[in-house]
Amino acid sequence: MTVRFGLLGAGRIGKVHAKAVSANADAVLVAVADAFPEAANAIAKTYGCAVRTIEEIETSKDIDAVVICTPTDTHADLIERFARAGKAIFCEKPIDLDVDRVRACMKVVAETKGKLMVGFNRRFDPHFMAVRKAIDDGKIGDVEMVTITSRDPGAPPVDYIKRSGGIFRDMTIHDFDMARFLLGEEVVSVFATAAVLVDPEIGKAGDYDSVSVILQTKTGKQAIISNSRRATYGYDQRIEVHGSKGVVSAENQRPVSIEIANGDGYTRPPLHDFFMTRYTEAYANEIASFISAIEKGTAITPSGADGLAALTLADAAVTSVQEKKLIAVG
Amino acid sequence: MTVRFGLLGAGRIGKVHAKAVSANADAVLVAVADAFPEAANAIAKTYGCAVRTIEEIETSKDIDAVVICTPTDTHADLIERFARAGKAIFCEKPIDLDVDRVRACMKVVAETKGKLMVGFNRRFDPHFMAVRKAIDDGKIGDVEMVTITSRDPGAPPVDYIKRSGGIFRDMTIHDFDMARFLLGEEVVSVFATAAVLVDPEIGKAGDYDSVSVILQTKTGKQAIISNSRRATYGYDQRIEVHGSKGVVSAENQRPVSIEIANGDGYTRPPLHDFFMTRYTEAYANEIASFISAIEKGTAITPSGADGLAALTLADAAVTSVQEKKLIAVG
Amino acid sequence: MTVRFGLLGAGRIGKVHAKAVSANADAVLVAVADAFPEAANAIAKTYGCAVRTIEEIETSKDIDAVVICTPTDTHADLIERFARAGKAIFCEKPIDLDVDRVRACMKVVAETKGKLMVGFNRRFDPHFMAVRKAIDDGKIGDVEMVTITSRDPGAPPVDYIKRSGGIFRDMTIHDFDMARFLLGEEVVSVFATAAVLVDPEIGKAGDYDSVSVILQTKTGKQAIISNSRRATYGYDQRIEVHGSKGVVSAENQRPVSIEIANGDGYTRPPLHDFFMTRYTEAYANEIASFISAIEKGTAITPSGADGLAALTLADAAVTSVQEKKLIAVG
Amino acid sequence: MTVRFGLLGAGRIGKVHAKAVSANADAVLVAVADAFPEAANAIAKTYGCAVRTIEEIETSKDIDAVVICTPTDTHADLIERFARAGKAIFCEKPIDLDVDRVRACMKVVAETKGKLMVGFNRRFDPHFMAVRKAIDDGKIGDVEMVTITSRDPGAPPVDYIKRSGGIFRDMTIHDFDMARFLLGEEVVSVFATAAVLVDPEIGKAGDYDSVSVILQTKTGKQAIISNSRRATYGYDQRIEVHGSKGVVSAENQRPVSIEIANGDGYTRPPLHDFFMTRYTEAYANEIASFISAIEKGTAITPSGADGLAALTLADAAVTSVQEKKLIAVG
Repeated sequence: MTVRFGLLGAGRIGKVHAKAVSANADAVLVAVADAFPEAANAIAKTYGCAVRTIEEIETSKDIDAVVICTPTDTHADLIERFARAGKAIFCEKPIDLDVDRVRACMKVVAETKGKLMVGFNRRFDPHFMAVRKAIDDGKIGDVEMVTITSRDPGAPPVDYIKRSGGIFRDMTIHDFDMARFLLGEEVVSVFATAAVLVDPEIGKAGDYDSVSVILQTKTGKQAIISNSRRATYGYDQRIEVHGSKGVVSAENQRPVSIEIANGDGYTRPPLHDFFMTRYTEAYANEIASFISAIEKGTAITPSGADGLAALTLADAAVTSVQEKKLIAVG
Repeated sequence: MTVRFGLLGAGRIGKVHAKAVSANADAVLVAVADAFPEAANAIAKTYGCAVRTIEEIETSKDIDAVVICTPTDTHADLIERFARAGKAIFCEKPIDLDVDRVRACMKVVAETKGKLMVGFNRRFDPHFMAVRKAIDDGKIGDVEMVTITSRDPGAPPVDYIKRSGGIFRDMTIHDFDMARFLLGEEVVSVFATAAVLVDPEIGKAGDYDSVSVILQTKTGKQAIISNSRRATYGYDQRIEVHGSKGVVSAENQRPVSIEIANGDGYTRPPLHDFFMTRYTEAYANEIASFISAIEKGTAITPSGADGLAALTLADAAVTSVQEKKLIAVG
Repeated sequence: MTVRFGLLGAGRIGKVHAKAVSANADAVLVAVADAFPEAANAIAKTYGCAVRTIEEIETSKDIDAVVICTPTDTHADLIERFARAGKAIFCEKPIDLDVDRVRACMKVVAETKGKLMVGFNRRFDPHFMAVRKAIDDGKIGDVEMVTITSRDPGAPPVDYIKRSGGIFRDMTIHDFDMARFLLGEEVVSVFATAAVLVDPEIGKAGDYDSVSVILQTKTGKQAIISNSRRATYGYDQRIEVHGSKGVVSAENQRPVSIEIANGDGYTRPPLHDFFMTRYTEAYANEIASFISAIEKGTAITPSGADGLAALTLADAAVTSVQEKKLIAVG
Repeated sequence: MTVRFGLLGAGRIGKVHAKAVSANADAVLVAVADAFPEAANAIAKTYGCAVRTIEEIETSKDIDAVVICTPTDTHADLIERFARAGKAIFCEKPIDLDVDRVRACMKVVAETKGKLMVGFNRRFDPHFMAVRKAIDDGKIGDVEMVTITSRDPGAPPVDYIKRSGGIFRDMTIHDFDMARFLLGEEVVSVFATAAVLVDPEIGKAGDYDSVSVILQTKTGKQAIISNSRRATYGYDQRIEVHGSKGVVSAENQRPVSIEIANGDGYTRPPLHDFFMTRYTEAYANEIASFISAIEKGTAITPSGADGLAALTLADAAVTSVQEKKLIAVG
């Protein structure tokens, strides 16, 4: 079976998914839609697919699944439309910045028995997958403490930050999902601190750039998250899971792994400086997992519920910072 | 000048300091006192010093300084007595488990213009000293986020735990001091979570074995501490300081640094499994710093005030866990 | 400009090049030829190209360049035919196992002003390229000592070994080329030792499985090569270049970079266990370099002369082992 | 039992051994002799021992063992005298630069049933000991290929080089011993190349500064040694042993193990820059092994025969370079 795709949105992340779909032996990219014809045409030319409108894709009989890469505020509407149209849906995170809107959207998905995957790409990074597998294989016993360090090479434009929902909903949300992925137990409380240490403009936009979070589950398992919008040495993405029998960790990735030594010491090059090069394999694996689930009719993970759960933690973190207190969730 | 020492307490940590004093070219161990004659005699024999009572050491004219390694509940009294006797004092942490008692003790030290150093040995670990130096040298710019991972190879006996003041005052207190040492700014708020994940007996004793803490300073700098009373792979002691220009970290130490590779992968031996072998150099450096400050008449660090500050953070952490809320300090 | 390719040979390495050509935006795979129709058809189907005979490709006007992946004993003939046909030629190493045949072939290439690249893929590994760049950038000063460790996960079938020309011409030849690439000066003497330590069957086939080589240049620069046909921990591929100002090294690559620690120590997974996964990027970069040189009309490296030079060193190594003496070359 | 020591020679290495003897609970330093009274007095003062002449130590009834740290050309004579005097002897390498003189000396040791240990300190480095233990424990199966990288931070004064017997007898000799220690089988052939790449003055003194050696045993096991008199990044001392079941290696040691990361990459400090700080533990372990063998009456290793064997390999390496050929030994 070959899964036939329509791509909604031909921007930066749309291109990533277009490449992943095209390179997958079990999928074909049939059509692309974008408000900017140039963007859609560029993808159509590169991958030999058609340019169609969203409406046309909605009714296309030669399309089984869509990848939604449009602006965030259109995600929930498009999910509902394509769920009703009977297409399998892969949607970039988040479904929406408002939990009520997410819940309403998921209700439609449920009613239509829609298939929905949310784009938490990091679950598909081969190194993080290997960490999860080590846990599943019992290598570290019971999970006790998760530590996630996640720092961006640099802050996005302030204009983006204003629309992003803030650092917790835009950046930390990936770590909330990763914490859930690794803890294997639902979080019951959230405490967060936040500060503006990198760029005062971010503070003027009402957001933070340096945050620390502690999550706790019912049985006392803990996850710590450390985020910064700046890391001079590259895209810092580390996880560590401490358990009753041992610890497993995934170190940072760097594009070139040489080392030069002289009187100043031993120096290795910086890390990847861009999420797309850092997570190249993750994006391909993510789409492959979506395709496989469609083909086999198996459950899709991460689901809309996972998207909602991560957003709920992000909202709790915002409240925790605002009210300077521990927030119960779930 | 040679600083002439009396050692109060000839137990496990007393032996460490006896060795450090004896090996130091600027010091001599003159006498040792201990309630158990065998313990005192053993040190006297090994290092060729006299056995005296505490009272005798108090009035000995051939003793300039004392190292207090007696049980915790005697520390404050002994500090006061030896401050009044005009001896320079090195006291193992903590001064006392009660902050009011510590304050009263420090008042005596101040009135007598006493010289008091508190035994936060980790400040003198060569690797952590190098981290501090990197910060002082401007290598990472302004400090923003400190991460401290501190896990013991195994829990102490439950009897010890009952007398210890609990994990925050006994174990995390080292990390509170390290956070202060690295942040370079006083902490204004403490949030802590705690759980019993390692041994239910610890819970029955009213304590925890797995804790996470977030500290924040006035300007928003943050420190995260992760503690566990268990680490199957050895004595896990890592610090990382993220700043505006970069990050500096100190990795774990292991007694043997070989690597064996085969079909199962690449394996390096476990870490040190005991704080005394891990911090051998730190103990020697610590005493050397004390001796140097006495000789030169310079300020002694860490001081009684540092001991009090760390204990205050520990108390705040206890309250934070009990009341499930953020605690303001300072 | 788009370079139009014909692929000669649709076996294991042919597939690698078919993929590299197809994924390259400046190239198109027009046709494939193979004695086994199934093999050719499989590639034709995957990449949407035609199946033609070698003769047809030789005269195809819509083909600018060929990739020769046929059995070794056909390489020299095919190079001569396609040089005469005016096609740019990428040929898998070696051109031939006999230096006289290689010289004759290169004469034809020279007479026809043919463009010939020899497939020493390792020069295009991003890590090894970065080592070369560090040298070019003056990071280590003058090159003095090169160390190459190259061990295969396991020995090839004895039947292959019999046809391979022996370990020096089949396996070490890559290291001879790498040594030349890094030394930046021609080798003037070769000394080699060899033994059968892995598999007696290899000895019965007249070959060795464990060899050590020292190369020296006119000015005294030295290269050491260590080879084994067995490495239980994966495909071991390391280089180190020591110079007057420092040292640069490229460490091994592993598919997953996690670490698990417990009472047995800290364990990382084994290395890649297959040259194709280890050198995926190298194969793509290699073809990209070939295409770029064709487009820009620049010199092609590594050239036929590089292939001849490496084979000459391999022959010298064989003689060195047989005669137990140092062999002068060049 | 306490072993009572006399120290012959109070220079740089004499001080190292004085410290090691004094710190050992089973030994006492009774007396020191040196042609320079100031040197002897300094050690006497530090460790509270007597100053005596060599003749006095020879006849001292309160001395069981001597450590010979005098100039190389006195070693053989002193060994013979103290063997006849019935003292256990620890002698710094080499016994002599001339193999005939060494053989004559060993004859005296044999006739007097003398106890002689030769100072190949590296065998007692905890990391190299762990490598040897891993081999003994069967972790890597049968040893096949040994790789030793040994580079000094800088060249010694040319005056020293003239008296040293040359790089092979002075520096590589440690690696010859290490190769024998790790191969577990006697070497039957030696090939060496050598060049002057670091300092022309070394060449004028008739020596080399950059050498590569291949050793081979009867069954085909191979050892490669790479030496340079210069390493800008510190004292480079690595060993790797490849076997039928795996590989074991000992990495370099550095005094401080922090890492600083910024836009230039990840940098760790340089290695130890001095053999005495690098091998501090080795010197202590070495003397402890000597003392233990005396106390228990067990065989002393490395013995005079080990010293002779390493010197024989050094001589063969010199001949190999001079005659540009493979030299058979043993």
